[in-house]
Amino acid sequence: MAAVPSSPLLKDELDIVIPTIRNLDFLEMWRPFFQPYHLIIVQDGDPSKTIRVPEGFDYELYNRNDINRILGPKASCISFKDSACRCFGYMVSKKKYIYTIDDDCFVAKDPSGKDINALEQHIKNLLSPSTPYFFNTLYDPYRDGADFVRGYPFSLREGAPTAVSHGLWLNIPDYDAPTQLVKPLERNGRYVDAVLTIPKGTLFPMCGMNLAFDRELIGPAMYFGLMGDGQPIGRYDDMWAGWCTKVITDHLGLGVKTGLPYIWHSKASNPFVNLKKEYNGIFWQEEMIPFFQSAALPKEATTVQKCYLELAKQVRAKLGKVDGYFNNLADSMVTWIEAWDELNPPKGDVATANGTAKSN
Amino acid sequence: MAAVPSSPLLKDELDIVIPTIRNLDFLEMWRPFFQPYHLIIVQDGDPSKTIRVPEGFDYELYNRNDINRILGPKASCISFKDSACRCFGYMVSKKKYIYTIDDDCFVAKDPSGKDINALEQHIKNLLSPSTPYFFNTLYDPYRDGADFVRGYPFSLREGAPTAVSHGLWLNIPDYDAPTQLVKPLERNGRYVDAVLTIPKGTLFPMCGMNLAFDRELIGPAMYFGLMGDGQPIGRYDDMWAGWCTKVITDHLGLGVKTGLPYIWHSKASNPFVNLKKEYNGIFWQEEMIPFFQSAALPKEATTVQKCYLELAKQVRAKLGKVDGYFNNLADSMVTWIEAWDELNPPKGDVATANGTAKSN
Repeated sequence: MAAVPSSPLLKDELDIVIPTIRNLDFLEMWRPFFQPYHLIIVQDGDPSKTIRVPEGFDYELYNRNDINRILGPKASCISFKDSACRCFGYMVSKKKYIYTIDDDCFVAKDPSGKDINALEQHIKNLLSPSTPYFFNTLYDPYRDGADFVRGYPFSLREGAPTAVSHGLWLNIPDYDAPTQLVKPLERNGRYVDAVLTIPKGTLFPMCGMNLAFDRELIGPAMYFGLMGDGQPIGRYDDMWAGWCTKVITDHLGLGVKTGLPYIWHSKASNPFVNLKKEYNGIFWQEEMIPFFQSAALPKEATTVQKCYLELAKQVRAKLGKVDGYFNNLADSMVTWIEAWDELNPPKGDVATANGTAKSN
Repeated sequence: MAAVPSSPLLKDELDIVIPTIRNLDFLEMWRPFFQPYHLIIVQDGDPSKTIRVPEGFDYELYNRNDINRILGPKASCISFKDSACRCFGYMVSKKKYIYTIDDDCFVAKDPSGKDINALEQHIKNLLSPSTPYFFNTLYDPYRDGADFVRGYPFSLREGAPTAVSHGLWLNIPDYDAPTQLVKPLERNGRYVDAVLTIPKGTLFPMCGMNLAFDRELIGPAMYFGLMGDGQPIGRYDDMWAGWCTKVITDHLGLGVKTGLPYIWHSKASNPFVNLKKEYNGIFWQEEMIPFFQSAALPKEATTVQKCYLELAKQVRAKLGKVDGYFNNLADSMVTWIEAWDELNPPKGDVATANGTAKSN
C-alpha cells in the first residue's frame, strides 16, 4: 500500500506575499515548502526591470504601474522604494491567510539539523487559539506535550482566535541601526523552542520579515504606512502595522503570537543607510509608544475597518502635533481603508475586484 | 599558578528556603551548587520528628514549635500541614535574596547534557533588569548574544529592577488535579532556552517549587496564605503570593521574570488528594483573577507593606462576599505584615529579631 501524501495545510486559503527588487532565486531553497502555494510578488522600485521567478511557482506580480492602475489616486497610500509596499499584496489577495517573507530570508535548521518548514509552523500558530488574558508559564498550552499549568483559570482555557503569528530569525537579528553599529558582529544563534501569546495590553515590535496573519480577522489593520520615497522615515513600516494591529486585536478580543518559526536571515542591511531612514522614527517612537499604550477604541468600533478609522482620527489629533508627517499618515490610513474596501467588497456584494496582473 | 576558584554568586546575601516533612537526601544532588549557601529549613507537620540533613550543609531549622515560640499569637498566619509554611523562612531570613525549592526537585540537565545550576541562573535573572513595559521578541535583551530589537523604544532600555525570578520544571509539569487526571502520563521534555519578563498588567501562575526573589524589594508580598490544616483550600499558596506580588510589582515599577532555570521535578503528587485540596480554589479562582486584574493601589502605597495592607483591605471588601475564608485570609495578611515588621524592623532600629533555632 502506498503512503497517502499529506496535502499542504491551507493550500487554497493562503497567499505568500513577497516584496522585492531583485530576482527571486531565494525561492529555490523554499521550493519544498512554498511551491504548493500561490505567491503575490510586489515589485518595488523601477517597474521596467524584470524580476525573474524560478520555474514552477504559481504567482502574480505587481509593479508600481500595476498598483497605480489598480488603485488610481488611492495608490498614494502605498509606499514606493520601501518594502512597505508589500501591504498592497495583502489588499489584492483573495485568501483568508497571508504569509509574508523577505527575499533575504532562507530556510533555517532546528537544533536537530532538520530544515524548518516556517510556513507550516505559522499555520499551526494561526489555527490554534491564543491566550492573551493570562500568561501560561509553559508557553503555548495548545502544543503537543504542553497544557495549561496549575492556577490557570479554567474559564480562560478556550483562548481567543489567533489573528497574527510573528516568527523570528536566526543569524542576523532584527536590530536597529544604533545597535547594528555598536554590535556589528552579533548573530542570533539561540533557538528558543517556544510560541507564546503577547498579553493583552502589551505592545511589541512586529517585524515584517517572517510574518503570518488571518486576513479576515485583521487584514485591514496590516497597513505598512508611508515609508521610503519622499517620506521622512523608513524601517518603521512593520512596527506601525504591529502597534495598530495590537491595539485593534486587544480591542476585538483576538490574539497575537510570537516565537517559532525561525527563518535564516542571511545578510545585515547597511547600518549607515538604516540610520538615515530610522533617525526620525527613533525620536517619534518615544511619542508613538505612549500614544498606542493609551489608545482606547469605542465600543461601536466592532470591525477592523471601524477600529482603524478611529485610530487614524486619534493619530491626527494626538501625533499630528509631533510632526506634520502624522497628518499625512492619518490621511493615508483612511485612503488605505477605502482602497481595501473597494478591492474587498463585503461578502454578498456583486462587485468583483479588478487587478489581475502577470500570472504564471 | 593555581586557578583562582570563582566565588559563588551572592554567597552571603542569599538564603535557600526549603519546606519539608522528610529527610533532605535530595540535597546530595544539589551539593555542588547549594553547599556554599545558608539553608533555612521549615519543617512541616509533626515537630517531634527529626529531619535528617546531609553532612556539611550550613542550616537553621524551624519546626512548628519554633514558629509558635517566635511568632506567638501571630503564628496563626503561618499555614500548618502545607508547604505554604515556607514563607516563615522568608520572614526569618536576614538576607537580601531568597531561593526556595521543593524537596522533590532535582538537578536537571540542559540539552547538551550538562547539569543546570538553577541557583546561578536565578541570581543572573535577579541581578539583571526586567522589561515589563514593552515586549522584546528576542526575549531577555540582557543575556549574552541578545539585545533589544528594532522598534524597542530607547527610553525603555534601562528596564526595571527585577524582584522575582520564576523557574520552570522538566519531567513532571505543574498541572492542576483535573489536568493530572486527564493526562496522567504527560511529561515536560521541552527545554525552552529563554528568560522573559511578564509584562506589566499581566497575571501569571507563580509556582513556588523553583522560585527566587529579592526580599528587600518584594519580600513582604511573598505571603503564601492560609492553606492546609483547618483550611478549605490547598495548592493555591504560591498562586496567591504570585497574584499579590504581581499587582504590587506592577504598582511599584518592579519586574518579574519567568523561564530558565529548569529543575527536574521527580514525582507527581496524587491527583485525587490534590483535587480535594484544589476544588474550592478552582471555583474561587474565577473570582480571584478578575479581582486581581482590576485591583488598583493608591499613590500613597509606596512600600510593599503599604501595598499589601491595602490589598488585604480590598480582599476583605471584594472577596469576602465570595466566601468567609477570604475574611480570614485578609486578617492573616495583616498579621503577616505585623509579624514581618516585628522580625524585620526598619534599618537603623536597635531591636534585633529573635529566633535562632537548631543550627549546624
